[in-house]
Amino acid sequence: MTAFSTVEDLRAACRALPDGDTDAARAATARQAVLTKPPGSLGRLEDAAVLLAGWQRRALPELDRVHVLVFAGAHGVTARGVSAFPAEVTAQMVANFAAGGAAINQLARQAGATLTVTPLDIDHPTEDFTQAPAMDETAFLAAVRAGHDAVPADADLVALGEMGIGNTTAAAAVAAGLFGGQGADWAGRGTGVDDAGLARKAEAVDMALARHADVLADPLAVLRCLGGRELAAMFGAALAARQRRIPVLLDGFVCGAAVAPLARLNGAGLAHAIAGHVSAEPGHRKLLAALGLAPLLDLGMRLGEASGACLAINVLRGALACHNGMATFAEAGVSEG
Amino acid sequence: MTAFSTVEDLRAACRALPDGDTDAARAATARQAVLTKPPGSLGRLEDAAVLLAGWQRRALPELDRVHVLVFAGAHGVTARGVSAFPAEVTAQMVANFAAGGAAINQLARQAGATLTVTPLDIDHPTEDFTQAPAMDETAFLAAVRAGHDAVPADADLVALGEMGIGNTTAAAAVAAGLFGGQGADWAGRGTGVDDAGLARKAEAVDMALARHADVLADPLAVLRCLGGRELAAMFGAALAARQRRIPVLLDGFVCGAAVAPLARLNGAGLAHAIAGHVSAEPGHRKLLAALGLAPLLDLGMRLGEASGACLAINVLRGALACHNGMATFAEAGVSEG
Repeated sequence: MTAFSTVEDLRAACRALPDGDTDAARAATARQAVLTKPPGSLGRLEDAAVLLAGWQRRALPELDRVHVLVFAGAHGVTARGVSAFPAEVTAQMVANFAAGGAAINQLARQAGATLTVTPLDIDHPTEDFTQAPAMDETAFLAAVRAGHDAVPADADLVALGEMGIGNTTAAAAVAAGLFGGQGADWAGRGTGVDDAGLARKAEAVDMALARHADVLADPLAVLRCLGGRELAAMFGAALAARQRRIPVLLDGFVCGAAVAPLARLNGAGLAHAIAGHVSAEPGHRKLLAALGLAPLLDLGMRLGEASGACLAINVLRGALACHNGMATFAEAGVSEG
Repeated sequence: MTAFSTVEDLRAACRALPDGDTDAARAATARQAVLTKPPGSLGRLEDAAVLLAGWQRRALPELDRVHVLVFAGAHGVTARGVSAFPAEVTAQMVANFAAGGAAINQLARQAGATLTVTPLDIDHPTEDFTQAPAMDETAFLAAVRAGHDAVPADADLVALGEMGIGNTTAAAAVAAGLFGGQGADWAGRGTGVDDAGLARKAEAVDMALARHADVLADPLAVLRCLGGRELAAMFGAALAARQRRIPVLLDGFVCGAAVAPLARLNGAGLAHAIAGHVSAEPGHRKLLAALGLAPLLDLGMRLGEASGACLAINVLRGALACHNGMATFAEAGVSEG
């Protein structure tokens, strides 16, 4: 895989991304047209099967090796009272993941996926990005590399998610930095802050936008200065998946903000990505619209941990069960319309 | 189970429905509040777990025995050119179900559910309901009974669906009969009719509404005169499930129209039902709104066969995986917000 020891190497990698296999996608589309159902009647399932075929480069894609990658990071901005939960919950939840007690443990098992949790230096929070860049280039590249390295070369699909108290504030800052708008446009209640907490989040984003105004034209600098380690890692994982032509399932607002720089650096940078769901965090719907991604699920979830993406795995399994297993009109002796 | 040998027996049964267990539902709600996640952050999954707990009468519900029940019927109204597919496709698809080649065969297997297909006298179409009642009372009660008898007493959940060329026209007629409006308000493209076919569907519905104007105040008569055998069977299955306090997953427009009389006869008649999805058939969204049901999925599907409901089974499995398997804050040593 492409190595990158500098931010400029990373930028170059983001601009030189491989495409999927249009022949495989075309064969999958042709197959959908002759299966025993009215054309188009499986809706989004048909599109998903074709997308998976294109990136897996086979007309009959499989989901035998599905990996859920969760990255955890600690945020200096938590000192500003931006979360309903104390900062130590990040480490406590990492322990809960290890013990199998969190939502994502149950959902990954139920989806037949392998869960890997990667804590990223969680004893050392990033800088408070209202005052300084969240990460220097060394820390940023280390986190990107950790995400990049977490993608198994033989995965059929990877789902990305995160844990990090304070990270919906980071996501709002990154989204505002990339797509414009103020803190109030992108900040939401996250895990459940009250009105005063919501105002503190919006204010922290506005402070960050002012503090880092000179780097906002550079998507990688936005991610480094306004993001966090788990965001950088999800970015790296989405990049690695694309380099290996592995389709990616995105989770919620934080995940979407983390991978958005790939779309800013390369118009087709997220062509291998499926939005697993749209969360209850209001900025997420806006972000998906900016990225041109239509979510598979809309279940009012706002947990993170890849929980929404993980539920979407079974939708993709259903899509492929139909795509690979159904009889054609000719095979079944069914009259076409 | 309640027997009914007359329509009046059936009506009485619909008015005397048991409730769920509020203690079990309350215990499930209390459990959701202490699991290691922000309160409410699993969105619709939390509501689903509580609903399943209430109807299964246990704080930790299970989905070990999930049954997908598909009913097939033949419709006299097909003679009016209301479908993109010829009428013989109903029998051909029943054969395809038996051979395992249809979408629902793949989706039921993928959802870990047992599929049962019940063809209802498909060699003898119902009457063209623009000219006469679709069924006489004997035929109607036989179909309702077939659906009623198809529900296994020990099911944890039943998902309902159908196959029947012409049946989106029947569903539009039933919906209009129950909720008002004209054919153009409820008719859609179904399996894919062109503009002329859509106009014929709307016209058939309007003719049926005029022909049966004198029975429209009676929900059971609407189902008998404007429906079809597979609609009557889904109605009977939803009733049987309720009598046994088994939660029900609804599929698309035809399924929704079929069970709607239960809500018209009893204000809480569909309290045990979950709308598995909203289909691409425009009338379905309107129908769900009239029934006060919020769909779990919205994937642009319009296949029937219980396909949308079946995809929702895995969402419910995810909901219960979290509900039953997650650690509490106290168990995991995680600080509460």
